[in-house]
Amino acid sequence: MSTKTIHVTASRDYDVLIGSGLMNDTGKLVKEVHEPCKVAIVSDSNVAPLYMKTVRESLEAEGFETVQFVFPAGESSKTLDVMGAVLNFCASKRLTRTDLFVALGGGVTGDLTGFAAASFLRGIDYIQMPTSLLAAVDSSVGGKTAVDIPAGKNLVGAFKQPLRVICDIDAFETLPDVVFHDGCAECIKYGVLESPRLLEVFSEGTEAVKANITEVVAESVQIKANYVANDEFDTGVRRYLNLGHTIGHAIERSAKYRLMHGHCVAIGMVMISRAGEALGITEAGTTEKLIAICEKNSLPVSCDFSTKTLLDGALSDKKRMGGNIALIIPERLGKCMTHTVPVEELEHIIELGKETSV
Amino acid sequence: MSTKTIHVTASRDYDVLIGSGLMNDTGKLVKEVHEPCKVAIVSDSNVAPLYMKTVRESLEAEGFETVQFVFPAGESSKTLDVMGAVLNFCASKRLTRTDLFVALGGGVTGDLTGFAAASFLRGIDYIQMPTSLLAAVDSSVGGKTAVDIPAGKNLVGAFKQPLRVICDIDAFETLPDVVFHDGCAECIKYGVLESPRLLEVFSEGTEAVKANITEVVAESVQIKANYVANDEFDTGVRRYLNLGHTIGHAIERSAKYRLMHGHCVAIGMVMISRAGEALGITEAGTTEKLIAICEKNSLPVSCDFSTKTLLDGALSDKKRMGGNIALIIPERLGKCMTHTVPVEELEHIIELGKETSV
Repeated sequence: MSTKTIHVTASRDYDVLIGSGLMNDTGKLVKEVHEPCKVAIVSDSNVAPLYMKTVRESLEAEGFETVQFVFPAGESSKTLDVMGAVLNFCASKRLTRTDLFVALGGGVTGDLTGFAAASFLRGIDYIQMPTSLLAAVDSSVGGKTAVDIPAGKNLVGAFKQPLRVICDIDAFETLPDVVFHDGCAECIKYGVLESPRLLEVFSEGTEAVKANITEVVAESVQIKANYVANDEFDTGVRRYLNLGHTIGHAIERSAKYRLMHGHCVAIGMVMISRAGEALGITEAGTTEKLIAICEKNSLPVSCDFSTKTLLDGALSDKKRMGGNIALIIPERLGKCMTHTVPVEELEHIIELGKETSV
Repeated sequence: MSTKTIHVTASRDYDVLIGSGLMNDTGKLVKEVHEPCKVAIVSDSNVAPLYMKTVRESLEAEGFETVQFVFPAGESSKTLDVMGAVLNFCASKRLTRTDLFVALGGGVTGDLTGFAAASFLRGIDYIQMPTSLLAAVDSSVGGKTAVDIPAGKNLVGAFKQPLRVICDIDAFETLPDVVFHDGCAECIKYGVLESPRLLEVFSEGTEAVKANITEVVAESVQIKANYVANDEFDTGVRRYLNLGHTIGHAIERSAKYRLMHGHCVAIGMVMISRAGEALGITEAGTTEKLIAICEKNSLPVSCDFSTKTLLDGALSDKKRMGGNIALIIPERLGKCMTHTVPVEELEHIIELGKETSV
């Protein structure tokens, strides 16, 4: 299967390369956008044993000098502390402003390394090498980087576009099923936003998705790239990418982050679709179709949290501005709209989204 | 004395207001550039007892809601840890992207709060209210923010221009003499770079400087603003602002930061001027005049560190790129040039800069 390239237009333009075997060509692909220099490869304890050697050797074969930083896998590493350790390591290795970071891993690695790159000597270039489907279609593209603080997830970070995104789809083969499905949820989100074609693949089930993975990732990234091009700094249309996320984040918080992000987004999409039908915004039958697609890909479509619990979780979301909240609601599969309501109405909307309310 | 306004042109333009009694008008001056919102006033344990109440009450009188964060005074607070505490505090107080930070204090407060503002929810606006002469003419203008990490000072940060700089010169009255003189060094630097007029004031001594402080700060800020306008992200002419800093930073490091920044810059300027004379770059007699100006303002002009010690300190500077180092050397007082040399030559230049070499 041939490599696909999606061009992202932002404060700095870059390409997202998607294909099989790209990791073996890391050195060549990095050299196309950056002259040989010192490269800090940042990865976690799950991913490094699998791919660090390949990436390092490929970079070194093209004349890059490498240093490696590996942190304990998991969201609990996405902190200012671990970022400080990465930065101190790179400073002690004498990286300069013209050197490079490579984020090799999933969303935690990409977000953490991206923010580290934004901050090291007030900014050096970095390359995203997502190894999970979720990171490939979501966090590795668009330049949102962040770490967590005790008060909440992703509350501290920077907008920092990568120099290039190298997505080797072969890496997905080592993902546990549940992690692959987690990524499917964000792809389904892109489908609900504007791609019935993408939803067709997902409605056939995960085997069909895997058989067309390069196209699925490319289509997802292209949709995200369009939003980023129009609203890099997330003050307008980029909020459409939050489809399913207001309630999804509330579920994540309510579950104390023991449920995976994509799983929560799947439930959040289903709930906002059901509420949309009740409000007369969403075409009748949309929720049923969406549930079928999610279930075909082993994603959950409901949760047991009370309306009150979800409301509290939703209100601590950083995207809330003043007294209103902008919800993204499907009109039908493939088209969504913004529905801005006073925060007081959110409780009612969550209630409408619950299965029991139908 | 009337307030002076210096306009800074950058990725976002803003004004630096310099005058007497401005702190009493904080609320009015902030309202001119930002609608009423929640404001986190960040200050340290030295400055907060002096000015927090005034600033807070002035903001609240204009309809701003305030929260205050006070950290222990001193460079040892300029860390990711303290920044994390500021950010977590602001998140727990539910500040949103449309709220505001105010940095009330010296360079540590400004650098720390600026980087916090750059990072909070990926960036919110902030106001600089420098209370030291050094912060007024240096760190509060130009958008360089940073914290220290174990590997070195200011190695982690962001370019983040403030929304406005409010510099109340009355605050300088509470500065210990040694701290005021420390700020004088950076003003003298601006003079050596391009303002014989500024040097005239300083050659009359500190009383004359104090009598003309609004003009001194305004002239210094105007010179800095010109460099920032031409090179916001420090990849070209902004490096002129490093006059005296390559050796100055080396002295700071060699002294394990027990000497103050401006004091080290004064020595660094004298040494690079002396080396420049030896190299035939600097007009004969320049160093002697510079020494007289520094001494008139109680600034040191020499140090006892060995060439080897200073060299090690200089080579760990983050501004070094690859194998060359760009030195700023006076041609005469009021005009400087860039002199790029292989790092191997730096030892010789430091040696030439030492008093004993004349």
